[in-house]
Amino acid sequence: MSDAFLSEFDRDTAVRRTAPGEYRAELSGGWAIGHALNGGYLLAVAGRALADALPHPHPLSVGVHYLSATAAGPAVVRTGVARAGRSMSTGSASLYQTGADGRETERLRVLATYADLGALSGDVRTTAKPFAIPPLEHCPRADPSAEVQGAPVPTMLGRLDLRLDPDTTGWALGRPSGRGEMRAWFALADGREPDPFSLLLAVDALPSTAFEMGCRGWVPTVELTAHVRALPAPGPLRVGLTTRNMAGGFLEEDAEVWDSADRLVAQARQLARPLGSA
Amino acid sequence: MSDAFLSEFDRDTAVRRTAPGEYRAELSGGWAIGHALNGGYLLAVAGRALADALPHPHPLSVGVHYLSATAAGPAVVRTGVARAGRSMSTGSASLYQTGADGRETERLRVLATYADLGALSGDVRTTAKPFAIPPLEHCPRADPSAEVQGAPVPTMLGRLDLRLDPDTTGWALGRPSGRGEMRAWFALADGREPDPFSLLLAVDALPSTAFEMGCRGWVPTVELTAHVRALPAPGPLRVGLTTRNMAGGFLEEDAEVWDSADRLVAQARQLARPLGSA
Repeated sequence: MSDAFLSEFDRDTAVRRTAPGEYRAELSGGWAIGHALNGGYLLAVAGRALADALPHPHPLSVGVHYLSATAAGPAVVRTGVARAGRSMSTGSASLYQTGADGRETERLRVLATYADLGALSGDVRTTAKPFAIPPLEHCPRADPSAEVQGAPVPTMLGRLDLRLDPDTTGWALGRPSGRGEMRAWFALADGREPDPFSLLLAVDALPSTAFEMGCRGWVPTVELTAHVRALPAPGPLRVGLTTRNMAGGFLEEDAEVWDSADRLVAQARQLARPLGSA
Repeated sequence: MSDAFLSEFDRDTAVRRTAPGEYRAELSGGWAIGHALNGGYLLAVAGRALADALPHPHPLSVGVHYLSATAAGPAVVRTGVARAGRSMSTGSASLYQTGADGRETERLRVLATYADLGALSGDVRTTAKPFAIPPLEHCPRADPSAEVQGAPVPTMLGRLDLRLDPDTTGWALGRPSGRGEMRAWFALADGREPDPFSLLLAVDALPSTAFEMGCRGWVPTVELTAHVRALPAPGPLRVGLTTRNMAGGFLEEDAEVWDSADRLVAQARQLARPLGSA
């Protein structure tokens, strides 16, 4: 298939096997936030390499530790299989980039268990309910040409149809709520429907809750773990973030993602470190 | 120091370096639940190996994927450093056991970031409050000689002073509450005070919330991620588990651990798979 018919997300997360367990990727600057590429995008790239390396197709539980900032350009993903079971398989992946000096630097390392989400039992006894958010048409779409906090809006916003709950946008107007909450409607800008890999992006695509808690500047992720619990139904996703514990220079961000069928399709938690003052 | 002066936990989680990045451990059957050793205990063993292999002393964010059931006896932990930074370092660890046929089997794989928790900023702006639990003296201590659900109480209970909130013990009397909640006071039976490594045990030491949701039998952990957020103060810990999403044959268990100074010292989430019928 020609690239012209691929979605931006599929094109920019594609990997090509170059040796057993080794993959090449061409990372796109379209997914930048400031000078670094978004962590959820990079996790989706590594996740697609693991989907090829492991006998099961879908991420079930994926943990990633970010080691250094990633730039647009070529990258290599090396994978290793820890266990290939009947219903689940587990493996590691590392993403590297080569510097001008010819030396490889590891950007992130992943440990993940994969399964076939389509083969899971249909039994659902969740007690969780979708969080409240105004209808999509009442949540303004972030304008990729605007400025926020005196800085250009992240390049990545051009890839997304991201509509923040007006109740969690005070930070962008200089009036943070003080609550560790962020909520949005999330879709890919080119209309590509969600799948388990775009969920890995969705759990790390919103502005940080740290902004609503009065922090400014970059909030790099130390570690993120995502559980993909079901194949998402077509249509826009609702993503909610909450933070309860900002202490010792770190905060946790809990993400939940609901699909258009009101199913809790992903849960994630990250440990992040706000670098700007509060 | 003679083993006679070590706590059970320190003795049973000790590792001995046998080569660069490689460690030997003697896993104790005292931490068994049924036929397998407890996952939190095993994580503490791997965690101590990483504390030696990495330049920072304490687990900050630790993810583990369990691959096969671990038995008492010798084990080897092999570690690898991904990045050694100024304030944090990241590495992997795998724990192996050798079978009667001489073949090594990987039991678990860990990906972790370490830091010096004593060097973190003292700034605490957590909005989380400790959950409600009756005073310790009103929570009965689990009797290691008793039976629960017709089976002997797990051997590990002899190592713990675990006092369950009576409000979350209905499952043991055949009357599960239907709520995905479990709460307990937690200490080591021999009086050893908590530290970041015993917190790795504490987040996986309570009965599963699945029991209160009507499941019986083993609830093996697929993956667990723990954030250790502060050095715990001496004294008993309070550990609370909650489950919101039991679906597709899996459930998440969120753990929070509060110390005697009312500080949220650890947060963890695991993905588990109840094998018994509900």
